Amino acid sequence: MKLTIAKNELNDAIQQVSKAVSSRPAIPILGGIKFDVTHQGVTLTASDTDISIQSFIPAEQSNKTIVQVSKPGSIVLPAKFFVEIVKKLPANEVEIEVKEQLQISVRSGSTDIQMVGLDAEEFPVLPSIEENESLYVAGDLLKSMIRQTVFAASTSEQTPILTGLLWNLQDGEFKFVATDRHRLSSRTANIETAEGYRFNNIVIAAKTLNELSRLVPDSSEKVEIVVADNQVLFKVGQVLFFSRVLDGTYPDTSKIIPQQFKTELVLETKNLTDAIDRAYLMSREEKTNIVRLITMEDGTIEVSSSSSELGKVTEQLNVIAFNGDPLRIAFNSKYMLDALKVIDSEQISIGFNGAMSPIILKPTDHSHNLHIILPYRTTS
Amino acid sequence: MKLTIAKNELNDAIQQVSKAVSSRPAIPILGGIKFDVTHQGVTLTASDTDISIQSFIPAEQSNKTIVQVSKPGSIVLPAKFFVEIVKKLPANEVEIEVKEQLQISVRSGSTDIQMVGLDAEEFPVLPSIEENESLYVAGDLLKSMIRQTVFAASTSEQTPILTGLLWNLQDGEFKFVATDRHRLSSRTANIETAEGYRFNNIVIAAKTLNELSRLVPDSSEKVEIVVADNQVLFKVGQVLFFSRVLDGTYPDTSKIIPQQFKTELVLETKNLTDAIDRAYLMSREEKTNIVRLITMEDGTIEVSSSSSELGKVTEQLNVIAFNGDPLRIAFNSKYMLDALKVIDSEQISIGFNGAMSPIILKPTDHSHNLHIILPYRTTS
Repeated sequence: MKLTIAKNELNDAIQQVSKAVSSRPAIPILGGIKFDVTHQGVTLTASDTDISIQSFIPAEQSNKTIVQVSKPGSIVLPAKFFVEIVKKLPANEVEIEVKEQLQISVRSGSTDIQMVGLDAEEFPVLPSIEENESLYVAGDLLKSMIRQTVFAASTSEQTPILTGLLWNLQDGEFKFVATDRHRLSSRTANIETAEGYRFNNIVIAAKTLNELSRLVPDSSEKVEIVVADNQVLFKVGQVLFFSRVLDGTYPDTSKIIPQQFKTELVLETKNLTDAIDRAYLMSREEKTNIVRLITMEDGTIEVSSSSSELGKVTEQLNVIAFNGDPLRIAFNSKYMLDALKVIDSEQISIGFNGAMSPIILKPTDHSHNLHIILPYRTTS
Repeated sequence: MKLTIAKNELNDAIQQVSKAVSSRPAIPILGGIKFDVTHQGVTLTASDTDISIQSFIPAEQSNKTIVQVSKPGSIVLPAKFFVEIVKKLPANEVEIEVKEQLQISVRSGSTDIQMVGLDAEEFPVLPSIEENESLYVAGDLLKSMIRQTVFAASTSEQTPILTGLLWNLQDGEFKFVATDRHRLSSRTANIETAEGYRFNNIVIAAKTLNELSRLVPDSSEKVEIVVADNQVLFKVGQVLFFSRVLDGTYPDTSKIIPQQFKTELVLETKNLTDAIDRAYLMSREEKTNIVRLITMEDGTIEVSSSSSELGKVTEQLNVIAFNGDPLRIAFNSKYMLDALKVIDSEQISIGFNGAMSPIILKPTDHSHNLHIILPYRTTS
């Protein structure tokens, strides 16, 4: 194997695939990046078995030569060192040559690096996915859908299925759900699909979707998504991102969303967020994050929190609308803030069914996003 | 005590003094910020006993009212919560009132905070410093002097005196020295002083100078420095920064700086820095950071490092000048990089006296800055 490659394009591709390199690989080969070199270009692959990322660098791009291949071949290079050295090489071009017995020479300007590679034959084979149906979702929309739900996923390995996001598709409605049993966030979007195309109970690890989100451009450029039984493939430009689907059955959460409320409030999202944020600072001192919300006789609401050592914060808030019964409820202010920060509507609607029932937060502009927070049962 | 104060000015002053609040205060009062309110303005003070910072907010500034005092007085407020809540208060003004028994009420817009303060009488008294002589150093110069030496101070509490920077002043030459016994950095500057004004063996903790550096503006605005036997006071605008002087005698390092060299090289600073940086990446894998430098027969130099697992990096470098004996030496590349990164000259001069003697790095533009690195004694 021997080639000359443009440093910037090589660096970009390495940064993309390196996100799939485990910092503590289970077997040495997974600490590497595989190079497959043909006359068409260079394919880089990295994998930690949960996720695999592949990036293709074409030999030519926009009439510019990116890769000159003298001899095709494959090799696995140690990722950690290579990821850092490439961006610091002195010249615009990098020459990579594999000699006998996995001896690799990397040259750029006045720099000469001799390394020992690993056998490409030992690198795990990427999952093969039948491409019968695909979904196409705009990059910025996919990023929003992840951002507006992913924080509600569980971080506890005791409930592995809840560390993922549930994906369903039916009648062109693509839905994400995340819950840690104390709160739930869901986001839907209408997507053009082949008629009758549907899937359910596809669960993808939250941390995988956070990694994916970093690769997805914040634009209307489409991401192709291919869903198979135990793998999902994302095509983002020249990058293929494979994710394992989590094993298990996601709990049915459709029944816990109330349709009617005893108390409904409409508030300015920013006003409420800022007030809860201040109350959160005090509640954090108690480690409980408990904040209280009380509807007042004059039609305003009061948000408050207290710490036995420090004192008390009280916030008076005007409401845009207040329908139903008076209310006195306590909740985890951190959970409430997480939800408020991703609601992309100037006003929000909050529904309650008494102090013991779930709190529902929705934007007033649309019904694509919904957050549920279970209240605290307090004595006061 | 009762006053109304502009939020932004209050927040700025709180951020300045909060750097002196210990995250784990030895006694509760040191976890607070003291407010002293008079009709002239508000003085905030924080102290962890090693450093103390005081900031004054005048009642009026540029014909604008900043503080309106209804009732002078003093109180200590819990810093951690107060530092975070102030910047998040909803209105431009903050009303602070102390009621009986250290009960404090803080109001801003729709926010009402009730807190318990601490008795200002219990707050430690700031050191009193006789102001017989002062030094005046431009902010940007003081920052450079700290930046170009502070990294060479020891981080080991086993040699407490070496965790500080040695300050000397004589005949208008102000000098900083830092060493951890493996390397040494020094920086001098010519300062206008009263005739005959001098001091020596003033040692100030490196971490204190890093904190000070953040408060100092990157401009020619002068910082006033008052040096006393066991305290140094810095006046930066409206801020007073007190630092304890470290106990003990700093070792005499003047003898270890050679005046003559067996080998002298002049190189482009950037070329050498980049080459050492690449060699460092490989040497880091071995945890030793050992990099070798060899003068070649063709007048170039070779910088190299190797790792038993990964391989070898070799760098070929052109020199601007090369005088004296051929050389083969090994050193800690991290120490060399630390020095190279603060040298503010396009070319540097490096002096050697064989493989076992200290390496001296100097800018070619001036003689105010000097770095010494001890070589590794290797067998090859």
